Amino acid sequence: MIDSIVGTIQEVFNNYVILNYNNIYIKIFCNSTKFSEFLGKEKRVYVSLKFNENLSELECYGFLTREERELFLKLQKVTGVGSKLALQILSSIDYQQLIVEIAKGNVARLEKVKGIGKKTASRIILELKETLKKEFKVASTSGTEEKTYEKLEEISLALLSLGYEIDEINQVLSSEDFSELSLEDGIKLALKKLSKI
Amino acid sequence: MIDSIVGTIQEVFNNYVILNYNNIYIKIFCNSTKFSEFLGKEKRVYVSLKFNENLSELECYGFLTREERELFLKLQKVTGVGSKLALQILSSIDYQQLIVEIAKGNVARLEKVKGIGKKTASRIILELKETLKKEFKVASTSGTEEKTYEKLEEISLALLSLGYEIDEINQVLSSEDFSELSLEDGIKLALKKLSKI
Amino acid sequence: MIDSIVGTIQEVFNNYVILNYNNIYIKIFCNSTKFSEFLGKEKRVYVSLKFNENLSELECYGFLTREERELFLKLQKVTGVGSKLALQILSSIDYQQLIVEIAKGNVARLEKVKGIGKKTASRIILELKETLKKEFKVASTSGTEEKTYEKLEEISLALLSLGYEIDEINQVLSSEDFSELSLEDGIKLALKKLSKI
Amino acid sequence: MIDSIVGTIQEVFNNYVILNYNNIYIKIFCNSTKFSEFLGKEKRVYVSLKFNENLSELECYGFLTREERELFLKLQKVTGVGSKLALQILSSIDYQQLIVEIAKGNVARLEKVKGIGKKTASRIILELKETLKKEFKVASTSGTEEKTYEKLEEISLALLSLGYEIDEINQVLSSEDFSELSLEDGIKLALKKLSKI
Repeated sequence: MIDSIVGTIQEVFNNYVILNYNNIYIKIFCNSTKFSEFLGKEKRVYVSLKFNENLSELECYGFLTREERELFLKLQKVTGVGSKLALQILSSIDYQQLIVEIAKGNVARLEKVKGIGKKTASRIILELKETLKKEFKVASTSGTEEKTYEKLEEISLALLSLGYEIDEINQVLSSEDFSELSLEDGIKLALKKLSKI
Repeated sequence: MIDSIVGTIQEVFNNYVILNYNNIYIKIFCNSTKFSEFLGKEKRVYVSLKFNENLSELECYGFLTREERELFLKLQKVTGVGSKLALQILSSIDYQQLIVEIAKGNVARLEKVKGIGKKTASRIILELKETLKKEFKVASTSGTEEKTYEKLEEISLALLSLGYEIDEINQVLSSEDFSELSLEDGIKLALKKLSKI
Repeated sequence: MIDSIVGTIQEVFNNYVILNYNNIYIKIFCNSTKFSEFLGKEKRVYVSLKFNENLSELECYGFLTREERELFLKLQKVTGVGSKLALQILSSIDYQQLIVEIAKGNVARLEKVKGIGKKTASRIILELKETLKKEFKVASTSGTEEKTYEKLEEISLALLSLGYEIDEINQVLSSEDFSELSLEDGIKLALKKLSKI
Repeated sequence: MIDSIVGTIQEVFNNYVILNYNNIYIKIFCNSTKFSEFLGKEKRVYVSLKFNENLSELECYGFLTREERELFLKLQKVTGVGSKLALQILSSIDYQQLIVEIAKGNVARLEKVKGIGKKTASRIILELKETLKKEFKVASTSGTEEKTYEKLEEISLALLSLGYEIDEINQVLSSEDFSELSLEDGIKLALKKLSKI
């Protein structure tokens, strides 16, 4: 029901912060390293509420962007990944980089996250790879052959790892014809277009 | 417990909007086409909170009038109609028109709604027709013969499809004697009276 | 957790009102006749939240005094009396008068309430009479003989039916010696003392 | 989810207070003797929400410091100690003194609390002694021999019973070498350092 809350980042702890919303201090589990940059500042936090059966308590997880929260929700659809482990993954790998690693099927990179073994890493990739690749919807629907599709996918992954948002990338890739360009020229063209958005 | 909330329609998505209530951003499932007219504006939204067992999350459904919300609640009393399907129906047919179609027993019209087959359409009509017709309480309690009752019902349905509220219609139909008038003259008289309310 | 809420009585319906608390409109089941006196005014409402299993919805019951709410909670401890019936009783008999009728064991008076038969009326009196009489704690602890105890009880019931609060009554009855006075003189003395509080 | 709330202590009752937060009056079970010092004043209250199955009601427990609330949560992990008994203990023994008594294994002192028998007192000490002693983490990790460890522990307990916070004590004990000092000189040195924090 609650999408996000605007409040002041009041205190930073190991894996949570205290957000002051109108004198109600809310404990938000999050990537506290990222949040600590905003200590004392007002911030819109995208939240996800979970009922913790063991502690019979409502817990709040927070993210600085909607996309990161959506990935947090997607990660928990993978068997064996609960909210704490999903947060652990997102606190170890930046969410845009994480999309790239999953889309590339990079098990080894995921295994570096504390609490993630080979089995869970492989399951994450198995269950999320296609879902995340569908997010690069422009590539699959423009009916280009398999080769151009893969090139567009490579370009998307490169742009993602440079920190661009999926929506921006889709917008650029659907506004130009990349079929005749090399991977390198394709990335250059895309970066030029992105700089004008 | 919560009847309605006044907030600013902040963002519009496919089947939900984000309502900003004092810096708490609330995700409200609704007829987003209708709500999009009020993007950026302050609006009172009549809500219904549902606990989604699958997502173990509290969900909020919103409507611009109390009557539409009441119809949303009534639709869910029909076997096989949950909150999402009820919202789908109300997003496809304006609620006042929907009352008319149900009161007329118009299965074909309901079947046009995505996700509604003949069986569900018939069940909606079977289970709600009498309840909704009782809302035209003036017609049934004034002890007039069956013929005038049907004429008053026709007049009510016509006025409803023109967008008048049930309460206004009841007020007008109980303030005049329509038994001697033709259907056409009855509608004309009612419209004249409604213009003075 | 929530004891009471201060808001504006915005709308009055059959057995509930809508309270506007900072643009959140709360549906409160209550004695709407009593509440309607405060339509448009700001009022502190003492609440009791109940989860309605059938509607899987949180419901809010409201009262203008803490004592009335406490009696509402006590009534529900009687087998067969749920929140709606408890509210029905309190909407039919003013709560101070209700304490008097229960303390006197007046089954006939309770039976006049819609939905209350002889069995439930007797059970209410059986289960609550002693609890409510204990509220006149001054009478039972001052070690006076049975006769004075009954007289003090009579005086308390009379003062309650005149609308005085239990705390005020206790304060007065424990500050004077009523053992030598007739019932009538006792009530006169108590009224004189109450007028000075 | 809610860490703490800032509001005005509006009313004090036997084992709870009413906190006014923006015209929502919240019933908070607490050490009302301690809270009564702040009647009418604005205070930040550290809370813990518990669902009371018998009353099917959400209950709020409140504390003036985060440390006291943490101890309240720890007490409830001991078999047979629920929220009401944990609050009873903390209302009878100041939380810093309670840590000292548990760390010292003082069953007799705990038995003085209403509702605590020998069995529960022993279980509290058995299950919490090591956890609480770990809070004096400086003592156990600095690799000093058993004798100095015990001396540091004694100094910590003494400082705790004088009302100093665990964090302050840890800070002082890790900034000096106490191994060569007598218990008495160690306490004097620590007090001198604490006065400068």
